[in-house]
Amino acid sequence: MRIFLSSLAFAGLFTSPLAAADPPKPLTPGDIVAAAPQADWSRIAPADLMVMDLAPDAKGRARRVVIQLMPAPFLQGWTGNIRKLVAARWFDGIAVVRVQDNYVVQWGDPDGETPGKAKALPQGLSASREQDYAAHYGAAFEPPEKEGSAGYILSPEGRLQRFLAVAPGNDDYAPGTGILEGWPIGLQSQEKGGDAVVRTDVWPVHCYGMVGVGRNVSPDTGTGAELYTVIGQAPRQLDRNIALVGRIIAGMENLSSLPRGTGALGFYETAQERTPIVSVRMGDEVPGLPAYEYLSTGSSSFAAYAFKRANRKDDFYIRPAGGVDVCNVQVPVREAKR
Amino acid sequence: MRIFLSSLAFAGLFTSPLAAADPPKPLTPGDIVAAAPQADWSRIAPADLMVMDLAPDAKGRARRVVIQLMPAPFLQGWTGNIRKLVAARWFDGIAVVRVQDNYVVQWGDPDGETPGKAKALPQGLSASREQDYAAHYGAAFEPPEKEGSAGYILSPEGRLQRFLAVAPGNDDYAPGTGILEGWPIGLQSQEKGGDAVVRTDVWPVHCYGMVGVGRNVSPDTGTGAELYTVIGQAPRQLDRNIALVGRIIAGMENLSSLPRGTGALGFYETAQERTPIVSVRMGDEVPGLPAYEYLSTGSSSFAAYAFKRANRKDDFYIRPAGGVDVCNVQVPVREAKR
Repeated sequence: MRIFLSSLAFAGLFTSPLAAADPPKPLTPGDIVAAAPQADWSRIAPADLMVMDLAPDAKGRARRVVIQLMPAPFLQGWTGNIRKLVAARWFDGIAVVRVQDNYVVQWGDPDGETPGKAKALPQGLSASREQDYAAHYGAAFEPPEKEGSAGYILSPEGRLQRFLAVAPGNDDYAPGTGILEGWPIGLQSQEKGGDAVVRTDVWPVHCYGMVGVGRNVSPDTGTGAELYTVIGQAPRQLDRNIALVGRIIAGMENLSSLPRGTGALGFYETAQERTPIVSVRMGDEVPGLPAYEYLSTGSSSFAAYAFKRANRKDDFYIRPAGGVDVCNVQVPVREAKR
Repeated sequence: MRIFLSSLAFAGLFTSPLAAADPPKPLTPGDIVAAAPQADWSRIAPADLMVMDLAPDAKGRARRVVIQLMPAPFLQGWTGNIRKLVAARWFDGIAVVRVQDNYVVQWGDPDGETPGKAKALPQGLSASREQDYAAHYGAAFEPPEKEGSAGYILSPEGRLQRFLAVAPGNDDYAPGTGILEGWPIGLQSQEKGGDAVVRTDVWPVHCYGMVGVGRNVSPDTGTGAELYTVIGQAPRQLDRNIALVGRIIAGMENLSSLPRGTGALGFYETAQERTPIVSVRMGDEVPGLPAYEYLSTGSSSFAAYAFKRANRKDDFYIRPAGGVDVCNVQVPVREAKR
């Protein structure tokens, strides 16, 4: 049947045409990922993974979701809380309570807002501030206005970090966007108060599959006990208005294909509709969990991949876009070979 | 439980705070939609609707999807074919063959590529050209660089049409984007060949829920017998590379929540996984179909709504984005009051 050859780029299934029949075809983003040397892949530490097992589906099939938590210096108040909630087994027994089409899947304590019925939170959770939605970096060295070019930024600890510029100066929601150590980010440089030192705010952005923290109205910032993931067009208007604590790297389909809720905002109207969460464990607590790795976003392979995502021209694409949205430069993640 | 107040904007469920308790809250996009006068809503002609009934779900619930076809001058070769296919009842009995997470749901003849088994197409389908992916308008009067401001464009028949500018000069995929008579569009003005007359190409863009035509590699442009809809981040790189023929205005969840396919590109690997399509009829053939209307994109209500979508500041939003992606200005569609 007819297919989108273009989709091969998303699926990353092609073997490199270097190994294929000639005449060689133009490289697709998937070709570049498939041809990337092992040295260009970075392992994800199991201690930074959260493994969420949902109740089996109607046919008895297991449903596992693997979430990678944001690294320092991002949102550590919230991810610290989430680690405490996992350690306390607090997430065990809660449920998916809301599925709103083209927006979010949300999970938490169904009785969380009911005095007397709400599940007690463990002691020692921290309350973060709204300014912590972004991390404060030092000077940023802007890249030329070209997709897939490298910029450099001074981390809070004074480490010079390389990031990949995406849609330079051409994003609707942030002065700059890019991919930094595997994460889609927004950037904004500014003067600090009265003095001349440049500060750069850096924050993760709301792309498909990113995981964020449900909260009440401002100034509440949420604890991390109620989480959501994006299942539609990136709701970038939420950037820096809500805490993003990670992203789903495996099992996304177990959330995105759940029935949509029929209540206001996609909340389920009956307990029976909710999908129970059996357990949530950190990756280093789960025997036999595969090792995961992502295509290093500082690598030349990733730069070529990002450039190609903005400039498709092959058997299928007749007109290259010449640009790409930061949320359309999905960071390739795969199970590592043993 | 905790909710995103922000989501009310998407759901459009708020009653106007003009009617609510004081002190009045800042208006949300949903407030503006709810407060829009009836005169700002436009009926969608039933003859431009395609009603696709899927087989009932496992619990016996009916699953209906309503698709609005693109109006002239857009993609009429393909929509003309689709009307012929509906008239010939060709779609009756085909199936959903592919669900790729964060990409597309696709339906067609499962045997379409199998010689001897493929379902015969009706006579008289037209073969369109790649240049027909865009419509050729006349001079365009660019709006100021402000969200929600009006631009004007000369239609092929010489009618001056008002469109709403979105992300003026700030889109990754097109020189201009906006909403024209209810549809998200890209625009590009250019000189015609040797002479000085300005021509403006206008094309629909790949937002969530838009419906397009599956095809083989270039120069094939597809007939319209195999269709897909977007169920994730807008794959804007497909704009002007493939025909967009409409959008889903009701029942999207019946496609977006289908199980993802486990084969390459999300194709189902067994016939049992496919969702049968029982029938496809034009809206004026379906007794009791509700009347649908959309918020007129030339209205002041829509301009205010679009501006608000770019500038959220209320109990929930602490930091307005100051911009919005054309695919995040969802055109409000509702069942008309009888």
